[in-house]
This record gives sequence, structure tokens and C-alpha cells, in this order.
Amino acid sequence: MHKSRLGTIVIDCQTQDVDAAAGFWSAALGRSAMTLRNPDDAAYRGLAGAPEDVSVLVQAVQHASRVHLDIETDDIEAEVARLEALGARRIAQVKRWWVMEAPTGQRFCVVRPQRPDFEEHANIWPGPGVR
Amino acid sequence: MHKSRLGTIVIDCQTQDVDAAAGFWSAALGRSAMTLRNPDDAAYRGLAGAPEDVSVLVQAVQHASRVHLDIETDDIEAEVARLEALGARRIAQVKRWWVMEAPTGQRFCVVRPQRPDFEEHANIWPGPGVR
Repeated sequence: MHKSRLGTIVIDCQTQDVDAAAGFWSAALGRSAMTLRNPDDAAYRGLAGAPEDVSVLVQAVQHASRVHLDIETDDIEAEVARLEALGARRIAQVKRWWVMEAPTGQRFCVVRPQRPDFEEHANIWPGPGVR
Repeated sequence: MHKSRLGTIVIDCQTQDVDAAAGFWSAALGRSAMTLRNPDDAAYRGLAGAPEDVSVLVQAVQHASRVHLDIETDDIEAEVARLEALGARRIAQVKRWWVMEAPTGQRFCVVRPQRPDFEEHANIWPGPGVR
């Protein structure tokens, strides 16, 4: 058994100035921009919202600007396998997460829990033997 | 004075089979897929979630697959003008909404209120004279 759900919207911005990018999206969405605690996360800014609402991140990237989704889970390997069985495919493992591609073509990531109410509100999936 | 906030994640899928596309995303995110009430919305499926969480739509499109954001507002013209002042630009008016482009390059839409708790939880913006 493991859990997952939609965790984060990541707004990927082709820029070297993540603060300017986060400035626009912060004002547009009415969410305060903040730096993250992990020093590895210098390319990210969080956009604070209500605890029960989806998380939003702005990321400075080198590829073309886009928006991608992160699925949060307490068992990355089990969740990646579940999504493969649904037709998604693995693209690359990066640090603590997997990049996958949906059968409809969008890239998305499978990451550790991000939202504070993950435990109470995530979807519960039975193990593969139970399906 | 008007209100707005992040309303909906739209998962644009380059497909003629919106039900197959919604089937994948419904299972991936653990949200039930449903048709919308408006007959104009045949290309969309809603993915049901908690009322206080962001809305999610799957849309069949002809352009390349992507994900875009909708900002919901009770005054589309005032919100579009506010976003222009932040650096976004108008692309096209479509039916009941505006397509805009962020200074960071992503297309997004400005739409009527979508989420049930819009009135209580949207951001409140003063009129242009008050800023």
C-alpha cells in the first residue's frame, strides 16, 4: 500500500533571474514568493498558498518555458510502477525524484510529499498483488 | 475592487479521444473524470477533487500537449488590465475568456470563477485608482 496525489504545479521559466520570474507569478496569483530551505533548491521559489491548496513553485530552467505537474508520494518506486502500468514511461531519475512522460505527451515528476496535509488527504493505492 | 486567484490546471492533450486522455490523468491523480454540463465543453473532462483544492480539467487540443493555468476572476476586464500592468500581454479573446502570455513565456487564461469557494478565498485587488 502507498499513497499519492497531485502535489505541486511547477512553473518552469526560461530565465537566469528566478526572482523576476517569481515576482510576476507571485503578483499574478496573489501568493507570496519565498526561497526554499534546501541550498540545492536555489533555482526555485515557492509561492505560498493555503495549506489545503495545491503547492506552486517557480523554477528557472534552460529549456523552453512551460508548466509541469508533480505527483507527490510516500513511495516513489511503487508510484512510478503504478504510473507505468497506466501507460506513462520513465524518462530520467534526478536527485530525489523521477521525471516521467504521460501517454498524452506531457512530462511530469514523481516526488516526495510536499503538501502539509498529504497524510490525511492523499489517495491510497493497494499493492500490485491486491489490484 | 475585484477578485482573482489560481482557479484551474488545464491538461491540454493533443488527441481526438478526450476520454482516453482523461482516463490516464484520472487514474494518475486519483480524481474521477466527468463530463461538463455545458454542451460547448465537449472537448473537456473535469477531474473531481476536494472543493478547497485547485480545479483540474483535461482538454483535447490540436496543438502540442502541454499544461496551462487558468486564473479565475469576477471581473475579467479588470483582471486582464491588472495582469497587463504586471507585464503579461493579451493574445486572444475566446468565448467567455482571455488567453494571455506571461512575461516568462507561458500562455494562460483569465476565466470566470470556477471553484466553489471563490468568494471566500480569492485575492482582493483594489481598483486602479487605489494602487
